[in-house]
Amino acid sequence: MSTEIEGLLILGVMGEAPKLLPDERRAVIETSISAAAGKPVVVGATHASVAGTGALARSAEDAGAAAVMIAPPPLTGPTADDVLVSFFTDSAEGLGIEILLHDHPASSRVVLASEVVARIAAAAPQVRSIKLEDLPTPPKVSRIRADIPTMKVFGGSGGLFLLEELARGANGTMTGFAFAEVLHEIWRAHRAGDADAAAATFFRFLPLIRFEFQEGIGLAIRKELYVRRGLIDDAHVRAPAAPLDAETSRELDRLLERLELDPRALPPLYASA
Amino acid sequence: MSTEIEGLLILGVMGEAPKLLPDERRAVIETSISAAAGKPVVVGATHASVAGTGALARSAEDAGAAAVMIAPPPLTGPTADDVLVSFFTDSAEGLGIEILLHDHPASSRVVLASEVVARIAAAAPQVRSIKLEDLPTPPKVSRIRADIPTMKVFGGSGGLFLLEELARGANGTMTGFAFAEVLHEIWRAHRAGDADAAAATFFRFLPLIRFEFQEGIGLAIRKELYVRRGLIDDAHVRAPAAPLDAETSRELDRLLERLELDPRALPPLYASA
Amino acid sequence: MSTEIEGLLILGVMGEAPKLLPDERRAVIETSISAAAGKPVVVGATHASVAGTGALARSAEDAGAAAVMIAPPPLTGPTADDVLVSFFTDSAEGLGIEILLHDHPASSRVVLASEVVARIAAAAPQVRSIKLEDLPTPPKVSRIRADIPTMKVFGGSGGLFLLEELARGANGTMTGFAFAEVLHEIWRAHRAGDADAAAATFFRFLPLIRFEFQEGIGLAIRKELYVRRGLIDDAHVRAPAAPLDAETSRELDRLLERLELDPRALPPLYASA
Amino acid sequence: MSTEIEGLLILGVMGEAPKLLPDERRAVIETSISAAAGKPVVVGATHASVAGTGALARSAEDAGAAAVMIAPPPLTGPTADDVLVSFFTDSAEGLGIEILLHDHPASSRVVLASEVVARIAAAAPQVRSIKLEDLPTPPKVSRIRADIPTMKVFGGSGGLFLLEELARGANGTMTGFAFAEVLHEIWRAHRAGDADAAAATFFRFLPLIRFEFQEGIGLAIRKELYVRRGLIDDAHVRAPAAPLDAETSRELDRLLERLELDPRALPPLYASA
Repeated sequence: MSTEIEGLLILGVMGEAPKLLPDERRAVIETSISAAAGKPVVVGATHASVAGTGALARSAEDAGAAAVMIAPPPLTGPTADDVLVSFFTDSAEGLGIEILLHDHPASSRVVLASEVVARIAAAAPQVRSIKLEDLPTPPKVSRIRADIPTMKVFGGSGGLFLLEELARGANGTMTGFAFAEVLHEIWRAHRAGDADAAAATFFRFLPLIRFEFQEGIGLAIRKELYVRRGLIDDAHVRAPAAPLDAETSRELDRLLERLELDPRALPPLYASA
Repeated sequence: MSTEIEGLLILGVMGEAPKLLPDERRAVIETSISAAAGKPVVVGATHASVAGTGALARSAEDAGAAAVMIAPPPLTGPTADDVLVSFFTDSAEGLGIEILLHDHPASSRVVLASEVVARIAAAAPQVRSIKLEDLPTPPKVSRIRADIPTMKVFGGSGGLFLLEELARGANGTMTGFAFAEVLHEIWRAHRAGDADAAAATFFRFLPLIRFEFQEGIGLAIRKELYVRRGLIDDAHVRAPAAPLDAETSRELDRLLERLELDPRALPPLYASA
Repeated sequence: MSTEIEGLLILGVMGEAPKLLPDERRAVIETSISAAAGKPVVVGATHASVAGTGALARSAEDAGAAAVMIAPPPLTGPTADDVLVSFFTDSAEGLGIEILLHDHPASSRVVLASEVVARIAAAAPQVRSIKLEDLPTPPKVSRIRADIPTMKVFGGSGGLFLLEELARGANGTMTGFAFAEVLHEIWRAHRAGDADAAAATFFRFLPLIRFEFQEGIGLAIRKELYVRRGLIDDAHVRAPAAPLDAETSRELDRLLERLELDPRALPPLYASA
Repeated sequence: MSTEIEGLLILGVMGEAPKLLPDERRAVIETSISAAAGKPVVVGATHASVAGTGALARSAEDAGAAAVMIAPPPLTGPTADDVLVSFFTDSAEGLGIEILLHDHPASSRVVLASEVVARIAAAAPQVRSIKLEDLPTPPKVSRIRADIPTMKVFGGSGGLFLLEELARGANGTMTGFAFAEVLHEIWRAHRAGDADAAAATFFRFLPLIRFEFQEGIGLAIRKELYVRRGLIDDAHVRAPAAPLDAETSRELDRLLERLELDPRALPPLYASA
């Protein structure tokens, strides 16, 4: 793996985690941890039950994961907040690694108020970080930062608001853009205090960041880009899925050309702006 | 198992199927098929991918299931109808048993027009029946009956519209009321042409049918009733779940008393109306 | 108007309020208040803005309404709870009549925790009652009763859980069943301490209560029943609306016959059970 | 009004149309048509009923609108497609101006298949254009173009996919970016066959296009930009609305500075790229 990346997050919601067979899931975890070569790997472990979440989390820990990502499960009936807090404490029981709370109402259908995040973190000490994808994300980064100073905050959302998230105090981002080096360079420039360089890189690649983060076809675009980079052999999205139309592929050609981005020439990906 | 029931449907959406660990799922299937003692068992096999659905379906077939129930998976992107049809044909490949199409927009978020059901049934010959829970169900029973005469139609929805569904031509119902004998007797009276008896039984037990089918707490009520019948030992709902409040339990006491229904005295459940 | 009813609630969510032209809305309010002949009339006044809600509410007060019903408006962006509380205080400014808080997540898409209801009631003293339709309603009746003793609680949901709502301490119900006398008799029996009579009446008419409260076609059924009672001349539902299929109408015939309920013979509606 | 714009679309879904009082609505229409000085003005006329939609549309026509924009209304019950087609034909009765079909599932909750759009256009000849905001929009532009060659297609979605929409054959865009001249210049370059210039302008302003199109706070950002341009005096968003946090305002400062965009210096807005 490129030295340009701090770690990996696998089996989140944008990819194919719910489509995998148990053996495939295991293979993805083992392959990723091995490929990470010592860098931290965060493994998605959301499940509908406490027992299932706990089992996925512990099995990820056994496989060598550095942390697990867990989202609020579907809840019904009264007193949802208490049930939610218990879900995290009970799922975390006996878990030695960190929990990254996944705040993504688009998939979980749960909006997490800052107060509830604080209650969860207080009750389940393994919950020490949050992947924040409750739009608009920048104000919520500020809110969580102010209310829960000890919690690490990561952006997501395809990187579309990375610049603002970092400026608001986010520790980084964990999201699936096919050119992770770009996000990494923005983060590095930000940390080095060079806001202009961070912005310049962000602005330069934003057309592609936006294009990849398209609803419904984003994963197909990302796989197509991985193929072009030589990272995977086949852009096929697990069924059921609509095939990428040919014109979207040509749009990608034109976009890469305009951005003077040659996926085959990587690494290095590009000269700094 | 009581001779009062024609068969079993297990691992649907109302119960705890998504909360089970793989081993628990296997145990539920094996125990149910064994307890059914030759009566047909339909096994829920909905999964987000074709590969997963096919694997669950074939494993149910291997375990001795008479049929599998499959709902439309989450779909994104354009041309959803074609993708949906392919989902069923591809999932059904190599499957020797029948598929019961689960039409339950509340969980699948997919509304199945009659034309699309017909396309699926034409393309995947294993799809020969439908569990219809797209409200209001009675008009849709008529519609499917008229458009796809060869398809068996079953009601659901806790039995709340069983009388109308049967009168519209439904072949029966598959739903989770804790007193399945009641639904069976309504069906038997209907088939015997005794609409008055069917209505009388339905009317008599409707207060309980309605009470059990409450959003968010229906499963907890059902388990409580199973305990009272002596069918299971523990009414605990797998976490995360809000506990049943004590007053709901007392409401159940009063309701059973008013209906002169003594769960402990079963079988026989009750004298015919 | 029959002496059997305590008052009227008009222009709620189940009917055609959003389909009316401004003149029609005014006519509905004036006609209803005049027909109520001194009995209290509650007028739905939910609007997307504070200005609109306030205007509808004050205009209802001017027309002689006893109260207005207001639901949470669509909210976006952060800090929703504070915005919600301000919505009620600001909308209520200068209003001399009571506000009935409409708790109906199915239409408002807002789930009101008991704590938030209490905050609203404390901040806007006009908010002194709640129409509770957050399923399951019975536990929430208990919760609101315990947390906010001064607040009057009314059921709704077509009356489907009226018996339990009353037993939990609800002050009554406001819902659109075409035979309001039935709901009134249940309430009267309950208040007189005759729980058996309340239950008997509820059980007797439950098949119809359930039938009328069907998703998507409930309003068409209600209008059809009003025509049969001679209360309106035309069962037409304002477009766009699917016409009631003929079989649903026949189901209604059979149901009324089985319940020995002759809409034309009203009043009196029925002999007490 | 600047000569840089072809016309105006007012009272759509992103702004405050549902929050206006009837008098305010009338004032917005009259002021806009007067300010447009002969350029076409499209007026949003979506309403829950045929009668209401027709009334809004005819009143817009009387006021001098060039067209009205109408979205599918909330539908319930069976046979939704037929009801939808009738909604448009009946609403259009007697209307002399064009109807722009609003395809925006995020607000209408109706997904319009290309076949249904074609049925509507065939049945209601006034429907001759579509504002396409069903994500991902580019493939749907191609689909509508291929299936209904006579229909004009306009993008929206804050302009986030304008480049691809135009390349797919869109006739233009109607969306609420605070620097409409930017969108206009992209469109003009595209029409002049200068794809490079179109892309350069789009890429240059994309950081701001993206920032303004934020869920929940987009309208507040747009008003803030209008104030900075001197177009309106007050950035206040009609209540209920969360106030824009101070940091979002500073993010806007920095963004404008980085883009070398001085709202006060307009017009002209910027030198061509």
